[in-house]
Amino acid sequence: MVAPKLLLGLFLCLLGTTALATTRSPRLGGTEMCSLQRLTASQPSQRYEYEGGSIELWNLNEDQFQCVGVQPERKTIQPNSLSLPSFHPYPRLVFIEQGVGLIGVHFPGCAETYDTGVQQQHQQQGPRRMGEGGQFEQRDSHQKIRRFYPGDIIAIPAGAVHWTYNDGNQEVVAVSINDLNNPANQLDMQPRPFYLAGGAASQGGSPGQQGKGSQKQGPWQQQEGSAHFVNIFSGFDTELLAEAFNSDPQIVRAMQESRNRGLIVKVQQPMQFITPDEQQLQQPRQQQQRPGGGSNGFEETICSEKLVYNLDNQREADIFSRQAGKLNYVNAHKLPVLSYLDLSAEKGNLQPNALFSPYWPVNNHVILYVLRGDARIQTVSNSGQTVMDQQVNRGDIVVVPQFFATTARAGQSGFEWVAFKTSRSPMKSPVAGYTSVFRAMPLEVITNAYQISPSQAQNLKTNRETESFLLSPQWTSQRS
Amino acid sequence: MVAPKLLLGLFLCLLGTTALATTRSPRLGGTEMCSLQRLTASQPSQRYEYEGGSIELWNLNEDQFQCVGVQPERKTIQPNSLSLPSFHPYPRLVFIEQGVGLIGVHFPGCAETYDTGVQQQHQQQGPRRMGEGGQFEQRDSHQKIRRFYPGDIIAIPAGAVHWTYNDGNQEVVAVSINDLNNPANQLDMQPRPFYLAGGAASQGGSPGQQGKGSQKQGPWQQQEGSAHFVNIFSGFDTELLAEAFNSDPQIVRAMQESRNRGLIVKVQQPMQFITPDEQQLQQPRQQQQRPGGGSNGFEETICSEKLVYNLDNQREADIFSRQAGKLNYVNAHKLPVLSYLDLSAEKGNLQPNALFSPYWPVNNHVILYVLRGDARIQTVSNSGQTVMDQQVNRGDIVVVPQFFATTARAGQSGFEWVAFKTSRSPMKSPVAGYTSVFRAMPLEVITNAYQISPSQAQNLKTNRETESFLLSPQWTSQRS
Amino acid sequence: MVAPKLLLGLFLCLLGTTALATTRSPRLGGTEMCSLQRLTASQPSQRYEYEGGSIELWNLNEDQFQCVGVQPERKTIQPNSLSLPSFHPYPRLVFIEQGVGLIGVHFPGCAETYDTGVQQQHQQQGPRRMGEGGQFEQRDSHQKIRRFYPGDIIAIPAGAVHWTYNDGNQEVVAVSINDLNNPANQLDMQPRPFYLAGGAASQGGSPGQQGKGSQKQGPWQQQEGSAHFVNIFSGFDTELLAEAFNSDPQIVRAMQESRNRGLIVKVQQPMQFITPDEQQLQQPRQQQQRPGGGSNGFEETICSEKLVYNLDNQREADIFSRQAGKLNYVNAHKLPVLSYLDLSAEKGNLQPNALFSPYWPVNNHVILYVLRGDARIQTVSNSGQTVMDQQVNRGDIVVVPQFFATTARAGQSGFEWVAFKTSRSPMKSPVAGYTSVFRAMPLEVITNAYQISPSQAQNLKTNRETESFLLSPQWTSQRS
Repeated sequence: MVAPKLLLGLFLCLLGTTALATTRSPRLGGTEMCSLQRLTASQPSQRYEYEGGSIELWNLNEDQFQCVGVQPERKTIQPNSLSLPSFHPYPRLVFIEQGVGLIGVHFPGCAETYDTGVQQQHQQQGPRRMGEGGQFEQRDSHQKIRRFYPGDIIAIPAGAVHWTYNDGNQEVVAVSINDLNNPANQLDMQPRPFYLAGGAASQGGSPGQQGKGSQKQGPWQQQEGSAHFVNIFSGFDTELLAEAFNSDPQIVRAMQESRNRGLIVKVQQPMQFITPDEQQLQQPRQQQQRPGGGSNGFEETICSEKLVYNLDNQREADIFSRQAGKLNYVNAHKLPVLSYLDLSAEKGNLQPNALFSPYWPVNNHVILYVLRGDARIQTVSNSGQTVMDQQVNRGDIVVVPQFFATTARAGQSGFEWVAFKTSRSPMKSPVAGYTSVFRAMPLEVITNAYQISPSQAQNLKTNRETESFLLSPQWTSQRS
Repeated sequence: MVAPKLLLGLFLCLLGTTALATTRSPRLGGTEMCSLQRLTASQPSQRYEYEGGSIELWNLNEDQFQCVGVQPERKTIQPNSLSLPSFHPYPRLVFIEQGVGLIGVHFPGCAETYDTGVQQQHQQQGPRRMGEGGQFEQRDSHQKIRRFYPGDIIAIPAGAVHWTYNDGNQEVVAVSINDLNNPANQLDMQPRPFYLAGGAASQGGSPGQQGKGSQKQGPWQQQEGSAHFVNIFSGFDTELLAEAFNSDPQIVRAMQESRNRGLIVKVQQPMQFITPDEQQLQQPRQQQQRPGGGSNGFEETICSEKLVYNLDNQREADIFSRQAGKLNYVNAHKLPVLSYLDLSAEKGNLQPNALFSPYWPVNNHVILYVLRGDARIQTVSNSGQTVMDQQVNRGDIVVVPQFFATTARAGQSGFEWVAFKTSRSPMKSPVAGYTSVFRAMPLEVITNAYQISPSQAQNLKTNRETESFLLSPQWTSQRS
Repeated sequence: MVAPKLLLGLFLCLLGTTALATTRSPRLGGTEMCSLQRLTASQPSQRYEYEGGSIELWNLNEDQFQCVGVQPERKTIQPNSLSLPSFHPYPRLVFIEQGVGLIGVHFPGCAETYDTGVQQQHQQQGPRRMGEGGQFEQRDSHQKIRRFYPGDIIAIPAGAVHWTYNDGNQEVVAVSINDLNNPANQLDMQPRPFYLAGGAASQGGSPGQQGKGSQKQGPWQQQEGSAHFVNIFSGFDTELLAEAFNSDPQIVRAMQESRNRGLIVKVQQPMQFITPDEQQLQQPRQQQQRPGGGSNGFEETICSEKLVYNLDNQREADIFSRQAGKLNYVNAHKLPVLSYLDLSAEKGNLQPNALFSPYWPVNNHVILYVLRGDARIQTVSNSGQTVMDQQVNRGDIVVVPQFFATTARAGQSGFEWVAFKTSRSPMKSPVAGYTSVFRAMPLEVITNAYQISPSQAQNLKTNRETESFLLSPQWTSQRS
């Protein structure tokens, strides 16, 4: 008796909140920010090199990024290197293109649920610059650390301190978007990373940082040249900070001086964190998700929120066609933290010469990154103008603004991509296939709209009836 | 035991979501967009004629529309004409001023729940331009079609494809607002209709479309002259589209060429859809709403969302006074889809010489359209300045920005209007009548604020005590 | 069985709504509104004197207020004076720095639940300017009136009419913020008070009112000189208004003419409202909050919403340290109406020489008002630049934009403040103390980030381990 009513209650609750799913606002900065005459496949415009890797940024001043309010970035981390702790005033969605590693995303006030015990005692010979006895027993407890693999999407909430460590033997390549226009950001539309360590003092390496000489041609500015950019501790008085930490000013000085190390550093001796993941690698990974296994209330707090979702799991493909390709989604239903971020993603794959049905994104922008192969992408604006008709290749970023109609045809070697979306539960409206708008319309509306015969209209409605979004190549178009 | 707790839970849930009812943002485009010195009753500034009707647009560059972020429009559809399928990047609320017809509002992925069976076989002689055998059996299934009547409010979500067909023998006149500032719109503040058929290629007929030579005087631009404006299929490669539909390129070419037909077309042979409405017309209409009748879970999805609500039902008047007039509301409580749109409406009627209590809208702007009669409307800004004092007549649009104080007095023949509101559950704060702010205040605050006597203050509190919003005419003002 | 499931349901519901807690948008008005090079302690720039008190306004054109979208103001009300009824298109959070008095906050349509009976008959000799018999029996009913004390936070929703009366024998001093950027405000970013009585017709006294000659240097404008500014009734036609009230035009004329009285007026004869508070003063105040006492469903409507919360209750301190100080919070969990306003506050106290841990506000801006003592405040921007390093004193306003890192050290006589925050449930991320980000990080990340030894890193993690936010003074920094 109770359960159904309860479920209904919850359902209504969710309905209520779903109704509020769009809390973003229209673009107001420029008056015609989305009057885009031309969309182009885009490569990074800036590259910053550090001892342990590099950061590449796309040019936020491009009209298409101004319209969608998103800044893409690609980070490469060398083996045994650490991307230093930082946070951002907007959420970030990361896709691991290559490599394995560990990421720490820390929330203030959450418990330190990982205790290293004494297993790390062999680490005692670790990095130390300033003299010390060495008789220190290095037992440590800290918040959860997450292991990532290729194909993972990682959700990083606004303001959460995070760091990344490459403990594999291959470069980690991570592509991400910074959602500057997110409601979590109460500042302006500037990219503003805050670093807790490292920095790029007057050396010209300061990603996403706005400086004095910046060109101003839209609400999302980005400096082109170099800028003084250091970690936040550099700005505090050394003595004051030392007292706050109740520590030796020497330590604080080391923190402040780390500003000359860049943003990704080599680690002197490999770091070894004990994480449950390591021990479970021998077991099948999906066991982590078995229902009813060890779940308790604590898991439902933000402290233990799941932040990582793998998009390479073929068995969990949301759309699959041997002839056409496959699509894996991750949205707020699969990874609940995405409802906080109001972001989501999809990984897609088209077979050689297969098509992506012409469609428009209903409640989100799409920022697509090409992983493999190539495709011809056509995009059309509301005035019926072709704003994009281009071959896109590996490493390109393609923007599809909300409601713009777009289609893609894979090249000879297929096409693979990851697409970031500015909605927690995005919606597509395709014009061909099982879920198409033409199937939804009465035949007579189609015949009268286009002055075609009923059988021709029937063709539009049903010729792709068994397919959805992903369309297999047709070597000879059928004639009615 | 359970039910009350459950209800309380739901109540709290709803409270929670209600608390978030205002997800819009202040106007940021211009720095003083709502520093309005003058509000005026406004008529359409542009008119586009098509073979099957016309579209009239109000001038979005008027300060008052810039402040409220809304574009009004009026569409006239001739008998046996079809307003072609289109969608908009913002929700639209439509009021049917005159005529009956059918509207299809289609959602991607919803089931085709209407099956025509073979009853339409007599339609086989329907429009066909390109030769075909004719032996085609025209059975069709499609999504729900809705019949509309005068007085109906129709809610059209952002991005939903919709078309309208006049199957009556009188012109359909539909007045609507486009809520450009809605959170559903992640693009900029341009009106951007997307058409799936038809168009106005270089003929100068393209409503709500921004062009190159547009005057730029605010965030919501609108082109004044003509513009190349065609359906979205025109922008795609014909062969690519043909393959996507797995259809003859001839069909796609017909779709693309329909761009010369305008936006409202004559239908060659009357379209006949079998809809349950038709069959229920013989029965009393309110039977559709009997509780417990055939309801099931499926009805709670967005696919079968109720989109139409009639404001002419006298028995459902929310406020009624034989001497003063009546008010019918439709908000998120009566038509739940309005919680997605964050819009609502009211239809009002004042008896000759009756008054609408001075009030201010608390959480919404008001866009009022005059249906019949005339009234004198006074509106006052925060600085106490009279920004409007004008006789308004049939067809005028009047804007009352949020918090601006306004009142109306009907002329000799009464006054009838429909008002669109930018909130899912709007709130008024009247200064006279049963729910007035003076009744809420202690007598002494009033006497001291205005230096009047207690009995005079009592007059302000209670002389209209039995009336609310609608005030009957008083031929001789009572003296205290 | 049922209760836990139900609670879970509610919990999920709340989670759902919490997920939507940030419904604000990034600043879009200026492109680099928050590229702040300098934050400074700020004093009011304008002062308006009235017969019963004064209003002081901070200069909204300061970069720091432009970034956070908030206007601070301080109101002083003389004994036996009335701040006239007004409302604002944005919520306001008020802190009572000094004095006691009564505030009426009225909601349209709520019941008049306070009935004076005949006890006020001795008031019959009250103020009356226009002749009248005197045989009028002055029984009155009105909406709830709230008594306030020093240390109270008062929440005033957008559009709610409110007035304040000082019935004590000491000046009332109230500091408040106007949250111009609140989602409840659908107008632009201008401060726009609407007055129902009084005014400052061409005398130069019109707080927060924008005029023609205003300097325009950002989206939140504020006039510097004088402006014609009168109550909203002045803008209506006298006869029309008289008919709306069904009253003598003489009364309406008195309302309109009150525009020359300013905004805070002397009351001729002390007003005496019977409020339950008065009678409860003899009883311990916390009895008002005993659980289960006389609660019913009606109390859950907005009409009887609790609007006042005292931050001086030492027993309810959220953080307390004899050596360091204390913190009292009020957020949506303690005062549910704050979830509507999306605002909250804290009152803090630092012992002489104690520190506030360096931290950054995660989901809100902070607007801090100094109540007593002094402190050195340092604030650092994302580029590591020291944007503030200043001694602040009583009466100063200090702004800490979202994510900017800040710390404070109290002077010799301690430091006391109230801080307003632009979030219903704000979050801090401290770098020292029990909940610090360093505790959350593994030791090795810290050693590698700063090239320090494990024991030095351990110092950073644990030397303030038993303290949180408020740090006791350390006369000799510990050396590792």
